[in-house]
Amino acid sequence: MKSETRKEVMFGGFGGQGIVTAGYITGQAAVVYDGKEATFTQVYGPEARGSACSSGVVVSQEEISYPYLLNPEIMVIMSQEAYETFLPRLQQGGVLIVDSTIVKPDKKAEKYRLHKVPATEIAEKMGARIIANVIMLGFLGKIWGAVSIEALQEAVKAGVPKKHLELNLKAFQTGVKLGEKALKRKIIKR
Amino acid sequence: MKSETRKEVMFGGFGGQGIVTAGYITGQAAVVYDGKEATFTQVYGPEARGSACSSGVVVSQEEISYPYLLNPEIMVIMSQEAYETFLPRLQQGGVLIVDSTIVKPDKKAEKYRLHKVPATEIAEKMGARIIANVIMLGFLGKIWGAVSIEALQEAVKAGVPKKHLELNLKAFQTGVKLGEKALKRKIIKR
Repeated sequence: MKSETRKEVMFGGFGGQGIVTAGYITGQAAVVYDGKEATFTQVYGPEARGSACSSGVVVSQEEISYPYLLNPEIMVIMSQEAYETFLPRLQQGGVLIVDSTIVKPDKKAEKYRLHKVPATEIAEKMGARIIANVIMLGFLGKIWGAVSIEALQEAVKAGVPKKHLELNLKAFQTGVKLGEKALKRKIIKR
Repeated sequence: MKSETRKEVMFGGFGGQGIVTAGYITGQAAVVYDGKEATFTQVYGPEARGSACSSGVVVSQEEISYPYLLNPEIMVIMSQEAYETFLPRLQQGGVLIVDSTIVKPDKKAEKYRLHKVPATEIAEKMGARIIANVIMLGFLGKIWGAVSIEALQEAVKAGVPKKHLELNLKAFQTGVKLGEKALKRKIIKR
């Protein structure tokens, strides 16, 4: 069932953070700009789940038979509730990227490769809390590798309102740079 | 992670069959009319998956922590492609309901409790191929039990166009009756 090239990312947070948009952009990046296969899944029914919000993307070189998340290897988490509820589904030794302005990881995170990105704080300094998700996308692009930075950037361009394009690209590049730094730290550690 | 009362159904078929609507109605039935917790998941990105289409519903008495399908116990399958690709994810010994007008089950189905419902044929005789999904919903309601027939019927009423209400209710009741017959056959077999 699970193909060699199957890669899964899950985004979790609360309504209004652009969690669904982040998933959509990632899926578009993979399919339209990287020429890969991808599926994008969104959960409905917030009335049943408070304001919790999530989306999932499966990316593969081959045709994807089962389009739902099976075993996410990387998670982008932007609320404490999403942290508590979704973390148990992260793959053993998987990568956990949290918006550290909002999420305070505890002992549970020790099992994973944790990255803290103060995305909402940075976004506020840039003048728009709403672009925190795009900062996270830039970071994800650098860390994950299943979708190229170039494809993600093109999908951001296509997926955000034209009048906020410049700000979104700046946010994306900020995330990419933070990702680069995080990777360098890892290399030095080794 | 998996709660005692967690129940999962997956709908699969091709675009235009109302696969997403069937999932939506089931989720609404559980939450609005049965007072349970439910999540409804839809896959986007048909450009990456031909015309394949699916949706998933998780129903529980308790709060649902992980909203995606983990291990569906019942599947409603309305296309051969969905049969081939999704069947491996059906729980061991799970229930498989196929639209037998379209889907021809093979040896793979022997592992499951198979129900054949000629929904599209019946729908065509009733004058509207598009209500095949509602026939399947009535059947599902009778067989599954995680959502009540009454709740499903209310959700069908609320979820279909007013001008086609009568036809849809007739389709739903047809499915319920077929489900009753199927259950009786099972009881006699035992």
